[in-house]
Amino acid sequence: MILFECDYTEGACPEIMKRLEETNFVQTPGYGTDEFCESARAKIRKACGNEQADVHFLVGGTQTNFTVISAILRPYQGVLCAETGHINVHETGAIEATGHKVLALPSGNGKITGDQVREYYNAHWSDVNHEHVVQPGMVYISHPTENGTLYSKEELEDLYAVCRELELPLFLDGARLGYGLMSEAATLNMEDIARYTDVFYIGGTKVGALFGEAVVIVNPELKKDFRYVIKQHGGMLAKGRLLGIQFDTLFTDELYYKISRHADDLAMKLKAAFLKKGYPLLFDSFTNQQFPIMPDDHLDKLKEKYAYCFWEKVDETHSAVRFCTCWATKNEAVDALVSDIEAL
Amino acid sequence: MILFECDYTEGACPEIMKRLEETNFVQTPGYGTDEFCESARAKIRKACGNEQADVHFLVGGTQTNFTVISAILRPYQGVLCAETGHINVHETGAIEATGHKVLALPSGNGKITGDQVREYYNAHWSDVNHEHVVQPGMVYISHPTENGTLYSKEELEDLYAVCRELELPLFLDGARLGYGLMSEAATLNMEDIARYTDVFYIGGTKVGALFGEAVVIVNPELKKDFRYVIKQHGGMLAKGRLLGIQFDTLFTDELYYKISRHADDLAMKLKAAFLKKGYPLLFDSFTNQQFPIMPDDHLDKLKEKYAYCFWEKVDETHSAVRFCTCWATKNEAVDALVSDIEAL
Amino acid sequence: MILFECDYTEGACPEIMKRLEETNFVQTPGYGTDEFCESARAKIRKACGNEQADVHFLVGGTQTNFTVISAILRPYQGVLCAETGHINVHETGAIEATGHKVLALPSGNGKITGDQVREYYNAHWSDVNHEHVVQPGMVYISHPTENGTLYSKEELEDLYAVCRELELPLFLDGARLGYGLMSEAATLNMEDIARYTDVFYIGGTKVGALFGEAVVIVNPELKKDFRYVIKQHGGMLAKGRLLGIQFDTLFTDELYYKISRHADDLAMKLKAAFLKKGYPLLFDSFTNQQFPIMPDDHLDKLKEKYAYCFWEKVDETHSAVRFCTCWATKNEAVDALVSDIEAL
Amino acid sequence: MILFECDYTEGACPEIMKRLEETNFVQTPGYGTDEFCESARAKIRKACGNEQADVHFLVGGTQTNFTVISAILRPYQGVLCAETGHINVHETGAIEATGHKVLALPSGNGKITGDQVREYYNAHWSDVNHEHVVQPGMVYISHPTENGTLYSKEELEDLYAVCRELELPLFLDGARLGYGLMSEAATLNMEDIARYTDVFYIGGTKVGALFGEAVVIVNPELKKDFRYVIKQHGGMLAKGRLLGIQFDTLFTDELYYKISRHADDLAMKLKAAFLKKGYPLLFDSFTNQQFPIMPDDHLDKLKEKYAYCFWEKVDETHSAVRFCTCWATKNEAVDALVSDIEAL
Repeated sequence: MILFECDYTEGACPEIMKRLEETNFVQTPGYGTDEFCESARAKIRKACGNEQADVHFLVGGTQTNFTVISAILRPYQGVLCAETGHINVHETGAIEATGHKVLALPSGNGKITGDQVREYYNAHWSDVNHEHVVQPGMVYISHPTENGTLYSKEELEDLYAVCRELELPLFLDGARLGYGLMSEAATLNMEDIARYTDVFYIGGTKVGALFGEAVVIVNPELKKDFRYVIKQHGGMLAKGRLLGIQFDTLFTDELYYKISRHADDLAMKLKAAFLKKGYPLLFDSFTNQQFPIMPDDHLDKLKEKYAYCFWEKVDETHSAVRFCTCWATKNEAVDALVSDIEAL
Repeated sequence: MILFECDYTEGACPEIMKRLEETNFVQTPGYGTDEFCESARAKIRKACGNEQADVHFLVGGTQTNFTVISAILRPYQGVLCAETGHINVHETGAIEATGHKVLALPSGNGKITGDQVREYYNAHWSDVNHEHVVQPGMVYISHPTENGTLYSKEELEDLYAVCRELELPLFLDGARLGYGLMSEAATLNMEDIARYTDVFYIGGTKVGALFGEAVVIVNPELKKDFRYVIKQHGGMLAKGRLLGIQFDTLFTDELYYKISRHADDLAMKLKAAFLKKGYPLLFDSFTNQQFPIMPDDHLDKLKEKYAYCFWEKVDETHSAVRFCTCWATKNEAVDALVSDIEAL
Repeated sequence: MILFECDYTEGACPEIMKRLEETNFVQTPGYGTDEFCESARAKIRKACGNEQADVHFLVGGTQTNFTVISAILRPYQGVLCAETGHINVHETGAIEATGHKVLALPSGNGKITGDQVREYYNAHWSDVNHEHVVQPGMVYISHPTENGTLYSKEELEDLYAVCRELELPLFLDGARLGYGLMSEAATLNMEDIARYTDVFYIGGTKVGALFGEAVVIVNPELKKDFRYVIKQHGGMLAKGRLLGIQFDTLFTDELYYKISRHADDLAMKLKAAFLKKGYPLLFDSFTNQQFPIMPDDHLDKLKEKYAYCFWEKVDETHSAVRFCTCWATKNEAVDALVSDIEAL
Repeated sequence: MILFECDYTEGACPEIMKRLEETNFVQTPGYGTDEFCESARAKIRKACGNEQADVHFLVGGTQTNFTVISAILRPYQGVLCAETGHINVHETGAIEATGHKVLALPSGNGKITGDQVREYYNAHWSDVNHEHVVQPGMVYISHPTENGTLYSKEELEDLYAVCRELELPLFLDGARLGYGLMSEAATLNMEDIARYTDVFYIGGTKVGALFGEAVVIVNPELKKDFRYVIKQHGGMLAKGRLLGIQFDTLFTDELYYKISRHADDLAMKLKAAFLKKGYPLLFDSFTNQQFPIMPDDHLDKLKEKYAYCFWEKVDETHSAVRFCTCWATKNEAVDALVSDIEAL
């Protein structure tokens, strides 16, 4: 069985495993105050083109999302996001557990626009009883989105400009950031991400690391006491060095980008095979997640050899599913799948 | 510089590093549903002598504590614990962040007794305005305690009997459980722990693993929907396999016990050196944490070569400090320290 | 200026004011343990045809909603309700502030159906990753709804049957319950409400009292420790007697029903005037809230003499607005408004 | 039976009852935006000698405390207070339910000092692992305290100076403020209270009103969006006018002070009787709460005619109890009690 069901089916890049092995008996202080973390922070700041940014390492995506969001919002504020946003649908109400409402905006493709944010903001503040309604306090987006789509440079610039104007911090969830930056359709690079957001995170779990997410706080107003929030929410790893070592390795010799490109390339091969076969795509993704709509009998055949992720029923005889590639996906695995698709 | 400041200064046991390396490209499903986790669960159940226990893997201690506690308590209930309990002093209010008061009981040595619990309980329920006061809803202890002390079998039996009678679930924080079980002063083994608590966790972070804590839920009433709580609190690792692999290794060939014994043995060497030198001990610990009270000028000398942890000022010229050994501590490191102490 | 903007523009029924005056210097113990509260509880139990129900008095609607809901739900559960439900839109995220997501269901008229609940429930439990999603834990409805509409007996019976089957407690927000029970379109009486819900509240603030809501807990499983929850959430009035006196008066000589009927009758007069004038109605309400869609120039004229509540823009030249009657509305006020409408 | 058990045994001052009656059918908008509230705010600002202060009306003390405190603190911060502080012992963990730890300081008499605050603050910030500990974020005091004691002008000035220096907002719980201001031992007046705190509240529930507390926000930084917090926590009374009318009346013709003086005078009579009888006092209170230590057989006799509040067991045959007077206490009631005490 070959798994394409998600992008966390293997361990970590060999470079990371090697580095963990080599440093295993080096003694370091705890909680991210070690030299490996310092080195990783420096490399990430450089990659972001921002020497003033604060960089913190957390363990997982849900944890990172509720830690960042609860650090920003005042108790009566909520976070604007696409209705498909991870925080709205797949985190067991973690945001609400910190006391905040997720203010979901309609979205066909997983993205939201500056206009949507402005409209929501204006509607709130023009309501004479606005104090009876959750106040919009920040904006959350994911890039790539949960649907594999990408913000263009223009779209992100516009959204950020609106957020600045309305004083709503913009937080970008980069759980799959590498796959977005390296997409053939990408118009945003890492420096752009750092320029057009207030805070974002660079996903490790899904992009080459055993685990780990690097939060980059660009906006100075959001930096204060962030380590307290991490600790309170269980995100301060005792052996913080493990995160430092992993991100230091990912940001050495462009490893993060190379492995992301690999996954994207394989995903484009898969996409071509789906299109060639005549399968429509639920979302037009240029990243590592692909969403073909396939006849259910084709899917039944494929599932003898391949694991994929059911997305939604489209009609009586067709379903949309998700196939993921990742940094670890083997060329032969994709070739086998492509050829089995052709043979259906 | 040799670090004795805490018990998480190195990576993981070589056996674990090797196993992670070997399995790195095995594909598995996520979130702890993989075969490695299953195998680890089976071994832990066996070690506990309880085939019905639920076993869940989380990432860190603070996370485990607030996840378990918030899963048990009703909103108006609090958790009884020693005033020195980790949840009361070193978790940045993580318990309170889930809405619950920590009900701290006085404790000289880090332990609490069944009598203290009963007295608190009775005082609460005999108050005519008890509804104006936080209701005691469970009991939290750590074993070994934050002071390195141990519950005797009799003490734990008694505490548990009181808890059963009063219907207060008893939760044991075993962040350093191995060092407790393998102490020369131990009267409790793993099966006893599983017999005399409702839920407990087996610490991995401080005992041989890169990270990870194994929660063992013994009381069937506490099992329902626990995975929701883990996910909501950010503790459900995408690559749950990493936890499975680590605990499977620790519970193969008694590795967990062997490495714990190693640390305890070295700690006893240190303790002997402190006593021989005439240093009083702040707490009489038979586990991997030692708390000598030393002249400040001795400490100043030692800190040129060794890192230890400041605990408290005892008088104008003396301080209590903490030295920790762990699974990774080298014999030579302890020998060097002992000889430097003798030479002071 | 005559206010029709809401149903809490005046003080309380003269009968209540008189009783407060008469009892002002009677000494009573605090927190709802007095004889007036006991008497009121007995009368409410009788009105509900349920001698076992627990009755608690709280101060306001938002407070009552988050108190009841947070008492019922487990931390990872959410509450199903219509997207227009008060808890979803007009309580500043009070439910989320207690840690729970509001699971909004689409609703054209303010109501939800048993089928919607079942479908949501099934979708949740058939999701293989259901632990990543907020678990539906209870159902909230309002009767009358925020749109003035009413559940029929058949609809409520069906919804309750589904809730029982799926073990989801059903909570009915009766902020305007009197106006629902006394509507000419009503098919549900107070005993039905108590029969087909697990917990509900009888609104006082909008129906004759200075303030106050009477929570009736029918389901024995929801009764335990409820006074703790009230106290923790600030709802336990020191002079609880004030609530007892008010509800005792409202449930003496059918006062609650009489004053509700008065408001409904006046609302029907208004409705007739709107229809006669050719105004469409945004919702077809048979209770004290009426929602005509009127030309903006008509509204401009009316607002010189009358206050109403803006609801939504319908097109370039028309808006939907809300006119409320209440227990205190004077016949002459409605007559004046009707005649001014006719004259437009 | 005559009740001295607490200070909320009756309704409200006749002046308030009269005013509620007179205004009963005046129509007003809701939520504290009416003319009565405006008038009351103006009078309170004047009484405080601060025309810029924001004044908000809430319903009860517990509600006011958690609303103010949760509005000020960041999620990882706690509130410093005396171990006897109401928020620490008698609010069912309401502060913790908003996510914050109560940081209790030792206190023999119910008060805390600037030195204690500074010491706690310094200890926190000098801890190298301070991020693992709840950060002190504000200070809560009550005046009079729960023990009936009073801060002197010098003590409050000093405490406030420390708070300013350390940037910790100082919140004063004035549930019984009137009884403090009018005490024969008072050295603080209303203007002092407004000068030496950042925010405080003027208690109505225990001082002449049916219910209600007036929050006065002096520090401009604490004013923003406070109405959202009130609404979210269920404190925004629909008929806010009721609070406006009551406070407007209390601050007309010095009523608030006159009725407070009355209660204090009667309490001093009681105190004299206790002392004359040779009863020691648990706390030396010059306000409306008195805490004699009495032989249990004396108490048994008294309880046939009088209700008091049990405080604590002092020895085998003596108990400390609390007798309260209030604005409504009759001279004859005190005279009867005094004479019965003499006769014991």
